[in-house]
Amino acid sequence: MDNVEIQGHVGTLHFIRFPTSEMRVFLELAKSKGIATLASTVCATGGGAYKFEEDFKREVNLELHKFDELDSLICGIHYIEANCEEECYYFNNPLNEELCEKKHFDFSNPYPFLVVNIGSGVSILAVYAPGHYKRVTGTSLGGGTFLGLCCLLTGCETFEEAIALAEMGDSTKVDKLVRDIYGGDYPKFNLQGDTVASSFGNMISKDRVGAASKEDLARATLVTITNNIGSIARMCAVNEGIVKVVFVGNFLRVNPISMKLLAYAMDFWSKGTLKALFLEHEGYFGAVGCLMELMKTGC
Amino acid sequence: MDNVEIQGHVGTLHFIRFPTSEMRVFLELAKSKGIATLASTVCATGGGAYKFEEDFKREVNLELHKFDELDSLICGIHYIEANCEEECYYFNNPLNEELCEKKHFDFSNPYPFLVVNIGSGVSILAVYAPGHYKRVTGTSLGGGTFLGLCCLLTGCETFEEAIALAEMGDSTKVDKLVRDIYGGDYPKFNLQGDTVASSFGNMISKDRVGAASKEDLARATLVTITNNIGSIARMCAVNEGIVKVVFVGNFLRVNPISMKLLAYAMDFWSKGTLKALFLEHEGYFGAVGCLMELMKTGC
Repeated sequence: MDNVEIQGHVGTLHFIRFPTSEMRVFLELAKSKGIATLASTVCATGGGAYKFEEDFKREVNLELHKFDELDSLICGIHYIEANCEEECYYFNNPLNEELCEKKHFDFSNPYPFLVVNIGSGVSILAVYAPGHYKRVTGTSLGGGTFLGLCCLLTGCETFEEAIALAEMGDSTKVDKLVRDIYGGDYPKFNLQGDTVASSFGNMISKDRVGAASKEDLARATLVTITNNIGSIARMCAVNEGIVKVVFVGNFLRVNPISMKLLAYAMDFWSKGTLKALFLEHEGYFGAVGCLMELMKTGC
Repeated sequence: MDNVEIQGHVGTLHFIRFPTSEMRVFLELAKSKGIATLASTVCATGGGAYKFEEDFKREVNLELHKFDELDSLICGIHYIEANCEEECYYFNNPLNEELCEKKHFDFSNPYPFLVVNIGSGVSILAVYAPGHYKRVTGTSLGGGTFLGLCCLLTGCETFEEAIALAEMGDSTKVDKLVRDIYGGDYPKFNLQGDTVASSFGNMISKDRVGAASKEDLARATLVTITNNIGSIARMCAVNEGIVKVVFVGNFLRVNPISMKLLAYAMDFWSKGTLKALFLEHEGYFGAVGCLMELMKTGC
């Protein structure tokens, strides 16, 4: 982000990411480049800020300024949204390949909104005003569950690989659908034939297991985790009486399948009353919020 | 159940179960025993009533009387609860091996209550009076997901086998806990160190995968599916303003781990305001309700 201002300082924000499993490599690089002579302060948030604090001190002699993960997330969303014109968007006709379009959403009057932060796990926050939010609930079935299961089921090793497999797969070979049980729809409760009745439900039969490829398994894992998050988010939105639901977190990076599934599910199950929103800098809000907090303290 | 009365008929109810994957074997047996000469009517509910209708007609020349699955479930719960003295129970100190005790619950004034029916998928119903209920929501992550994933991850073939593996496993080798990320509790949001932050979250590292046994994987699958159901049930209960939550379905058969986890989770996360209840005939309510409906029609 060019030419942005934080507490009177104007400059460019650069975004770089690496998984925390590569922290050792990062620290070695930082040491060889003499990072301690270039920076006086590193701010950090999330669990890693606690986990790697001693490594930073020992390897590169830097103290971490630790900020709360969810405070930083909310703060970062406010800042980036205010400074980045086309940050917020939604999908029209999400599951129709020809008609699907990504549209800008005017988020300048955001309150109240729900934030569904999908990292390795999921936290759901209700935001009522700047600085005024609560953690509504969470689920442990998040991006770590998707990747962990994909590694076990397909032998893949990275998130990018898992997503690439999922893009080529067909989850209906793995999941048991309403039509697999009823032969069609279950109209009494408005359940369509292609609704998933039991995720991975076909994998209890050896024949079906033999017919499912690793791509199918990756797709089913992605669909299962995504729909579960969508369903929990929808219940929270109804509970809190909030109609704008913002999905963020690194799980959504390079992952249009999940974004479109979430957009469709929120619209369908709420009969159009809820809106699924997404942000361009999906996984960087914590880092930016953390920087904002640091600038406030004047370090 | 001995000496029970249905619409003026007094007799004994026998309960037998087999998986629908064994329907072919059942039909062959029924044919060889000449079942069509013994019975004039077979009543059936659930998806199988549709799926196997033609097979029954062709193989044993019997028409299936089909009744709606959820109507039958509710009707069966009412009947069995009224006729079986020690049907309904709960757990005190569910996760403490020494202090845990199963206690009878007086369910004679049941309304309103929530029914969480865990079969291959899950349906959640709010029951306000006899015959007056609604399907609140459902999740496709149910018993079929547990068994399907266990078959894929451990090579087991039956539900009993999957449960037996889970009994010997340790899910904390598979799941990433809050303490794995933060080094301890995350007190700001009341998250204890041993709370699961990311189900299967440790399985993204090859070392961790190597250290997890198939028992650990089965246990983690069971814990993941159970906690997710508990979490969704809890949200529904809060939404509907209902404090009695009755868990039923074949997923709970031979499965005290899940019952105790659900009991603990409902109590802990609701700060004692919600009560998890269980029924002795956990998977037979649909069948009994179906029989009741048939007797009403006077066939």
